[in-house]
Amino acid sequence: MDVGTAEKKDCLESLRRSLAERFDDRAAVREQHGKDWSRLPAALPDAVVFAESEEDVRVVLETCQEFAVPVVAQGHQSSLEGHILPVQGGVVLNMTRMNQILRVNEDDFDAVVQPGVTRKQLNLHVRDKGLFFPVDPGADATLGGMASTRASGTNAVRYGTMREAVTAARIVLPGGRVVQAGSRARKSSSGYDLVRLFVGSEGTLGIFTELTVRLHPIPEAVSVGICPFETVAGAIAAVVDAMRYGLRVARMEFMDALSIEMANSYSALGLRVAPTLFVEFDGSPAEVTASSEVFGEIVAQHGGIDFSWSQDPAQRNRLWQARHESLYATNAWRPNAEVWRTDVCVPISRLADSILAAQADIEASGIAAKILGHVGDGNFHVAYLIDPNDSAQRDGVRGMIERLNLRAISYGGTVSGEQGIGILKLPYLIGEHGEPAIETMALIKNAIDPKGIMNPGKMGSDVGMFAALQAAKGEAAS
Amino acid sequence: MDVGTAEKKDCLESLRRSLAERFDDRAAVREQHGKDWSRLPAALPDAVVFAESEEDVRVVLETCQEFAVPVVAQGHQSSLEGHILPVQGGVVLNMTRMNQILRVNEDDFDAVVQPGVTRKQLNLHVRDKGLFFPVDPGADATLGGMASTRASGTNAVRYGTMREAVTAARIVLPGGRVVQAGSRARKSSSGYDLVRLFVGSEGTLGIFTELTVRLHPIPEAVSVGICPFETVAGAIAAVVDAMRYGLRVARMEFMDALSIEMANSYSALGLRVAPTLFVEFDGSPAEVTASSEVFGEIVAQHGGIDFSWSQDPAQRNRLWQARHESLYATNAWRPNAEVWRTDVCVPISRLADSILAAQADIEASGIAAKILGHVGDGNFHVAYLIDPNDSAQRDGVRGMIERLNLRAISYGGTVSGEQGIGILKLPYLIGEHGEPAIETMALIKNAIDPKGIMNPGKMGSDVGMFAALQAAKGEAAS
Repeated sequence: MDVGTAEKKDCLESLRRSLAERFDDRAAVREQHGKDWSRLPAALPDAVVFAESEEDVRVVLETCQEFAVPVVAQGHQSSLEGHILPVQGGVVLNMTRMNQILRVNEDDFDAVVQPGVTRKQLNLHVRDKGLFFPVDPGADATLGGMASTRASGTNAVRYGTMREAVTAARIVLPGGRVVQAGSRARKSSSGYDLVRLFVGSEGTLGIFTELTVRLHPIPEAVSVGICPFETVAGAIAAVVDAMRYGLRVARMEFMDALSIEMANSYSALGLRVAPTLFVEFDGSPAEVTASSEVFGEIVAQHGGIDFSWSQDPAQRNRLWQARHESLYATNAWRPNAEVWRTDVCVPISRLADSILAAQADIEASGIAAKILGHVGDGNFHVAYLIDPNDSAQRDGVRGMIERLNLRAISYGGTVSGEQGIGILKLPYLIGEHGEPAIETMALIKNAIDPKGIMNPGKMGSDVGMFAALQAAKGEAAS
Repeated sequence: MDVGTAEKKDCLESLRRSLAERFDDRAAVREQHGKDWSRLPAALPDAVVFAESEEDVRVVLETCQEFAVPVVAQGHQSSLEGHILPVQGGVVLNMTRMNQILRVNEDDFDAVVQPGVTRKQLNLHVRDKGLFFPVDPGADATLGGMASTRASGTNAVRYGTMREAVTAARIVLPGGRVVQAGSRARKSSSGYDLVRLFVGSEGTLGIFTELTVRLHPIPEAVSVGICPFETVAGAIAAVVDAMRYGLRVARMEFMDALSIEMANSYSALGLRVAPTLFVEFDGSPAEVTASSEVFGEIVAQHGGIDFSWSQDPAQRNRLWQARHESLYATNAWRPNAEVWRTDVCVPISRLADSILAAQADIEASGIAAKILGHVGDGNFHVAYLIDPNDSAQRDGVRGMIERLNLRAISYGGTVSGEQGIGILKLPYLIGEHGEPAIETMALIKNAIDPKGIMNPGKMGSDVGMFAALQAAKGEAAS
């Protein structure tokens, strides 16, 4: 989208007048809002608005629509695929000041929050009521950002993702109309499912100003187990059996041998260097004991070595330590390395194939990379460690990421289990969904955002898709 | 929508040529396809196509788009709100011959089916593999129809509705393009959530030709309990406590005193005539025993009288009998009565208020009506028994249904927990969602179905909405 300089200037002046000190176009503030956690280069917005109310958001979307100026909403800025980079400039809406928890309905197990509330903030707030919010993508992200990317994390296998967690939302559309989507009912057959259309739309259709999210009772008991395996295939076979048995799995995490080696190096844990499953069950004390014992029998049938588990909180933390510290262990392993992270999600029947092929690819490349995943869901991440002085390694990793994505598609899976599309995954969107689905997405995008001001250069609009495709190829060639 | 007679004739002739004996416009066949289980008058289609393949569906949607002729898909024809009535004529697509189970992926707990497969057919097919498909709306509906209406039923509290059950779909759009939406991955952050947009869209956007649905392992043990209560409020309070405790509830059903009276009359069950909860837990034998015992303690705190439960299959069936036979018991209670059924869903904190207000309304009217519900979800149904010779009773029931819906909206709930919108609930759609949301739905409808051929007169299009609104008012005045 080309925005005339005069129009943009008028737009910014109008916003400055309307929003007073919530409007900021100083260079340092713009720079701060030009990056995320992805490996992409920064992209400068023309100005930043620190929204403090729905009315602020409404004014921005009305004004930017009038002048056809891009709008990109940002929360914790922890996206890994470039979602929030203002690649066509325009206005960044910083949503972090809209951080009020408006209401907790204990009997209904839900809370109404502003989009700048973080998941940890919400959990701290509801803990005394015996409730918790389960979706945990690692970073202490804002709920608005998590809803926008359809985030999930370790316990999605039991509690679902943001797709299931958000039951209602207030959304400002380009032009400034405010939609109330969904209700506080736990289920509904009333009308098109606007909530789930906007969840995962990555700021390309509208901006959340209020979310109603489901909470869950804190389980009475939790048990955690850890089990190294002789082979990756054995570990995954145990996962399938546990799911088939209907065990009340709250988390089911896999770490490969290198992940364990890094963890040992980081914290002297002395774990056996082998493909390893971490599992968590919740429920009553009797239930979790029973589940742990059944799981012990299952792992024994698949080459599991020395399964240990505990309900004791201190012991549980010790068992989870390798998994919890995984991010830091990776960063510490080769402190100067560039870490590129990606994820895919496949049907569980193809999980072993997917992980083994990724491993073979890594071994053939000679580049260090660890694999870990939320295997109960068929979702896994690869973190590649690139020597920044060896640009050939970047090309090698780009090739591996491409093959990883294409294999996920060929296995009936998806190129993003939870990190989202952003910019880096755009080239694979057509391969996964096919042209008719992408065209349908573009029809919806154009109907709701006819001027293409919402997070342009990202998914939805043809123009954005192909521009981003070219940008990604340019980045790949750089 | 006005369709020129010449265009319609050309359209039908073209379909007759393309589809040979799968095209049928004999009067008896058209009449058969002009009704559903709702209380609305029949509406004749101009012709019926018995689709046997995706290609048949594609041909119909291409041809009807060309000539701007309406298309209405039908499955088991068990909709209760008039969804499938061809109120503007056109072509009915009978999908019941597309009834193949294409693939069952045991390790992935999913199945790929054609839309004419019924839920009982699928369950029979997968039972030997230790799997089951949970969504159970009562009728042996087709999965295509269930997906179209976002159906649910008694065990949605644990297994979710069709919103959660459908992971991928092939959909033919008006004009004949075929979209593959979603994947077989259990979760995804890739692209707009087309699956959930089409699920619940009631045939107004496209027609399913293939569905991938989630299956679940048959639980090792099941326990069923029944408990009469002194008061409705006590019963609902017990539900809230059970949910808060995190009990593994598979079903949680409420029947009011009249429902129990009807059941006693139908099968001489000798149950205490009182508001009653039916509950089902599943898991391991130890788990379900523990859950049943905890539930026993909960009901005792809320005026529960004489809670009895069993894991034994024969005993379980006996305990469930009143609930299972509820439909027949209602029909048998006053054999000549017209039965009007409706449902709403509210936050659980407002469930007692909603049910008590509905009861007060019924008592004041002097019209017989029973209330029963999937109370773990906040969803309940009312069945009104109307003396067909007393037309004032129809007006009385219309008023009660209207008040029921308006209360559900005012409580933050929805006018349809599971029966859908069809025609009868259209007047409440704007009240529930508000104009901006309805306009957004209309934008999507117009973008995907610009000629408005898909199930016209139903939700999505402004024209359809207001026409149906008028029709419903006309029906109300008749």
